[in-house]
Amino acid sequence: MSETIKKIGVLTSGGDAPGMNAGIRSVVRTCAFHNIECVGIVQGYQGMIRGEFIPMDARSVKGIINKGGTILKTARSKDFMTKEGRKVAYDQLKKEGVDALVVIGGDGSFTGAMVFSAEYDMPVMGIPGTIDNDIFGTTHTLGYDTALNTVVEVIDKIRDTASSHDRLFFVEVMGRDAGHIALNVGVAGGAEEVLIPEENLGLDRLLESLHRSKASGKSSSIVVVAEGDKIGKNVFELKDYVDEHMSEYEVRVSVLGHMQRGGSPSCFDRVLASRMGVKAVESLLEGKSNFMVGLLNDVMSLTPLEQAIKGQSKINLELLRVSDIMTT
Amino acid sequence: MSETIKKIGVLTSGGDAPGMNAGIRSVVRTCAFHNIECVGIVQGYQGMIRGEFIPMDARSVKGIINKGGTILKTARSKDFMTKEGRKVAYDQLKKEGVDALVVIGGDGSFTGAMVFSAEYDMPVMGIPGTIDNDIFGTTHTLGYDTALNTVVEVIDKIRDTASSHDRLFFVEVMGRDAGHIALNVGVAGGAEEVLIPEENLGLDRLLESLHRSKASGKSSSIVVVAEGDKIGKNVFELKDYVDEHMSEYEVRVSVLGHMQRGGSPSCFDRVLASRMGVKAVESLLEGKSNFMVGLLNDVMSLTPLEQAIKGQSKINLELLRVSDIMTT
Amino acid sequence: MSETIKKIGVLTSGGDAPGMNAGIRSVVRTCAFHNIECVGIVQGYQGMIRGEFIPMDARSVKGIINKGGTILKTARSKDFMTKEGRKVAYDQLKKEGVDALVVIGGDGSFTGAMVFSAEYDMPVMGIPGTIDNDIFGTTHTLGYDTALNTVVEVIDKIRDTASSHDRLFFVEVMGRDAGHIALNVGVAGGAEEVLIPEENLGLDRLLESLHRSKASGKSSSIVVVAEGDKIGKNVFELKDYVDEHMSEYEVRVSVLGHMQRGGSPSCFDRVLASRMGVKAVESLLEGKSNFMVGLLNDVMSLTPLEQAIKGQSKINLELLRVSDIMTT
Amino acid sequence: MSETIKKIGVLTSGGDAPGMNAGIRSVVRTCAFHNIECVGIVQGYQGMIRGEFIPMDARSVKGIINKGGTILKTARSKDFMTKEGRKVAYDQLKKEGVDALVVIGGDGSFTGAMVFSAEYDMPVMGIPGTIDNDIFGTTHTLGYDTALNTVVEVIDKIRDTASSHDRLFFVEVMGRDAGHIALNVGVAGGAEEVLIPEENLGLDRLLESLHRSKASGKSSSIVVVAEGDKIGKNVFELKDYVDEHMSEYEVRVSVLGHMQRGGSPSCFDRVLASRMGVKAVESLLEGKSNFMVGLLNDVMSLTPLEQAIKGQSKINLELLRVSDIMTT
Repeated sequence: MSETIKKIGVLTSGGDAPGMNAGIRSVVRTCAFHNIECVGIVQGYQGMIRGEFIPMDARSVKGIINKGGTILKTARSKDFMTKEGRKVAYDQLKKEGVDALVVIGGDGSFTGAMVFSAEYDMPVMGIPGTIDNDIFGTTHTLGYDTALNTVVEVIDKIRDTASSHDRLFFVEVMGRDAGHIALNVGVAGGAEEVLIPEENLGLDRLLESLHRSKASGKSSSIVVVAEGDKIGKNVFELKDYVDEHMSEYEVRVSVLGHMQRGGSPSCFDRVLASRMGVKAVESLLEGKSNFMVGLLNDVMSLTPLEQAIKGQSKINLELLRVSDIMTT
Repeated sequence: MSETIKKIGVLTSGGDAPGMNAGIRSVVRTCAFHNIECVGIVQGYQGMIRGEFIPMDARSVKGIINKGGTILKTARSKDFMTKEGRKVAYDQLKKEGVDALVVIGGDGSFTGAMVFSAEYDMPVMGIPGTIDNDIFGTTHTLGYDTALNTVVEVIDKIRDTASSHDRLFFVEVMGRDAGHIALNVGVAGGAEEVLIPEENLGLDRLLESLHRSKASGKSSSIVVVAEGDKIGKNVFELKDYVDEHMSEYEVRVSVLGHMQRGGSPSCFDRVLASRMGVKAVESLLEGKSNFMVGLLNDVMSLTPLEQAIKGQSKINLELLRVSDIMTT
Repeated sequence: MSETIKKIGVLTSGGDAPGMNAGIRSVVRTCAFHNIECVGIVQGYQGMIRGEFIPMDARSVKGIINKGGTILKTARSKDFMTKEGRKVAYDQLKKEGVDALVVIGGDGSFTGAMVFSAEYDMPVMGIPGTIDNDIFGTTHTLGYDTALNTVVEVIDKIRDTASSHDRLFFVEVMGRDAGHIALNVGVAGGAEEVLIPEENLGLDRLLESLHRSKASGKSSSIVVVAEGDKIGKNVFELKDYVDEHMSEYEVRVSVLGHMQRGGSPSCFDRVLASRMGVKAVESLLEGKSNFMVGLLNDVMSLTPLEQAIKGQSKINLELLRVSDIMTT
Repeated sequence: MSETIKKIGVLTSGGDAPGMNAGIRSVVRTCAFHNIECVGIVQGYQGMIRGEFIPMDARSVKGIINKGGTILKTARSKDFMTKEGRKVAYDQLKKEGVDALVVIGGDGSFTGAMVFSAEYDMPVMGIPGTIDNDIFGTTHTLGYDTALNTVVEVIDKIRDTASSHDRLFFVEVMGRDAGHIALNVGVAGGAEEVLIPEENLGLDRLLESLHRSKASGKSSSIVVVAEGDKIGKNVFELKDYVDEHMSEYEVRVSVLGHMQRGGSPSCFDRVLASRMGVKAVESLLEGKSNFMVGLLNDVMSLTPLEQAIKGQSKINLELLRVSDIMTT
């Protein structure tokens, strides 16, 4: 057990995700369990620079495990990208007596943590929090499971109206760089086609697929499109394209947007957050630094932050095939 | 009890709404209760013209009370707007032996019913089914209560991310001609401002309201905008306008779209549908025609279709005032 | 506008109900709107006696509109039933400078308010908050609509397993004195029979109904039972009775219990709470006292507390009939 | 690819679980994809004996992916436990032309499949479907993830009323032999204590834990109890025991019961079911038999049925420790 760590700072950074509050709670309670002090840092690195710290004990995180968003707030910090900004941040941490950091966020947040840790010898531990699940070193990021359920429930609703009117819907879901959400909700929502950044079907194959679907007797269809798909058209342009090339469908578009980030976390995300918070704090107390906590083979694991940032979370090819078979 | 009615046809028409299936079920079971035959007409007036009828008994509507959409499907019918189309429709009904109609839909569907009934002396009864609640003669249309809950749940999710990032969201909800959804979800979602077709606040008042909200210490805000608001800008233009005139907020837009039409109906909508179906069928059996069933003062009531179409459902001024007070 | 009221106290009392927080928020914000001070009284009359007051301004009720339960907590107070207890309570209110009270609760809470007001000339206004909807003078109590949706969602889940196994379920729902919940969720959940305090079908009719249901081809059934039903057997005894008299069904029991009190309030309950809070505060400011705010004919109304307590909320006979027809 | 398999039978057996329909759908569509015939067998082995088969093509499983329960129904079959019963079953399968079986169910169902397969050289493949997650050879059974979310949502509701009234709740959840549900929902629901079959804390430790919780300032508490806990008292007896030994709490009990089996499956369960169905059918086509499909290290895997039945799914000790830390 590290003698040197007496106070841990915890912050959330980057886009918010359900489960971040459960993660904060776990960090705070694990600190309390080990009789370590804990402070929350407001608005990520930006609040660190401003010196906005909130002392947190076990009771202060009561009733937040089921709340979406992050009580510590989150923000992007341009200042922290500068050497000067990080200097101020470090001084603030020293003034507050913070010995180590737990950073809940995504790639960008981890990069900041890594640079900072290298410059100031501050132990840091990352917890992957983003709905996109696009982080190497963990099969699941915090918020991903919740977002999947949120999106699937919306697709179920859209299916109701699609099949009542015999319509085709293009549903845009989050995922600028990764198609994990799109692929999973596509399978779970019974979508006829899924367009993801990792695979460019091309417009011809899309039309072909829609024709085949129509021919097989389906009167309504849902195509799930990841934000970052590579087909070269956004959902509205896709609608226009299909309108032009297929008269059989009445086409509609739905862009799900930010609602995907909110909501009470699923059981899975709450449990994952609780496990990750314990692992992050205890790893720091064991003298480790510069790792990201992750779930690998269902076990809490550590991946060097550098690898977590550089590595690529791959799409599940088996599931891609399942998706094709299901649209038979 | 009318001796002449032996078989009733039921159809859904116009935009689909949660509770339509519960309404169909109620019509079918009330017919069964009175030993009247019942047929479902597929895709509204369009299916009537095609003669697409499905015999329905009490068992055939099993397990649909909690399903969104409409098992009878719905469509707009240009053919039914022509004298020739209605002639074919009437012939199909006669061939099938249908003596009376229950039409579940909105204004347009009722207009069709009224014209048809006048031309062919076919008894008709309307059930108001639309999420917009913009029909005179009932305090609640089928689907309205469910849509309110759907939208409020989404706004709760958006609030999570809005307050984590200190953002301002413009959330567009359904309501081309009526602000009922926007006003109610605005109050229920704790929105800072509500823009509805019935009232044009003007852009100045909007900015003023956002400035006041910011000054009062709120760091995030939600503005609910009805599709048909009269401020002269759509949600994306509103975002641009605020971006230009207020640097204090990071602004985002969310257009909820068709998900608002789907989903399992709320308890209220299922009960309302069940009551309306009984009232519609029994009113036909009592020899009445050309009425819309409605809920007025919590009691099942009849309003002449002509009035239902011409009359205007008014926005609740008391609630508008409550909305203002709540944003204090 | 009453010159004498400068500070209003708000409390929740009796069983908690979803929407109470939205009601507190509305009272607080309406006070702020009228530049009146507001204090929250913790744990109802018990906290009043202890002098547990929390100053509340518009910001202090931020983020509670969608929370179940009551942030002011609730308790039953035996002390307040005594003259001495009420004397202490009054002294505490005077010390705090409270000029008037808004009491959110049920019959028992209103009785306390009425007695107190008579003894000490303290203006009081009641807001009906209970999931049972058993209060005269309003068509809807706070929490009732939410509870209906909660129960219907559970019945939908039970229906899934009931029909997979061809089972009969007795589902006990809340309602010691009133069958409103049972009757509505029975209709909305497609129950085969509903047992409520207002009507004693007798065991024979129950068996007959189950036999008829079986004969009509239904393989699974749900019977909704209000806690206070008058059939003379609890749900477990009902199970035994049916087990004994009908071999056709495998019978199971589900007692829903306290979950019915919790959860995020529905849109309807949030809007109702917002309206009632405004009406309660503004009625006090107009010099009125000893009324309960209610929703009658969709309009905010006042009913003398005495009537609210003595009057009886009647079961909807039309809906009882609809329930029978639906099980055809 | 096996030349001999031309028609596959699929059945659900044992307790129903959310995701079974998604599993049936996947089996059916994978058969269609490989141009194999598929028949659904009604009510598990019982229907097999009765010869109740339903031909299923890709369209026949439309719209079921999001439905709870099982459209094929399920039942326990005493007849199938006899040699005679299995003989009849085999003859029915031969008559129908069924070459191989996919059995969706739990331990008991797999035992039946194994015995049957040994007697009649019928290729069988198992898919683990049970909310209890008590099956060796897969980290997740179908329905488990959904049940976790269902229970956590209910605990959130109970928490609302518990904290409003400062009460202690004993919440009984499913799990006769395994504490997976209890442990996970305990962590996710922020429970103060979890009682599971795998660990007997003893009543003293329970009291001690409740005292400590009270001392730490918590005014309400939730204790999650698995059906099969080994403390020697059921939840009602636990209530009485605590009532007797602790005056600080007002104690209540909630038995969640069968609602835990129902509901629309989560995204995770729908995806898992889709993957398992593909794996099961394709494994049969590859000539394999007597395996259970499972998720191990996030990859589709096969475990011999015999091992799946004999092996024991172990409680996650790391999570047990997390649970303790969280209640700090």
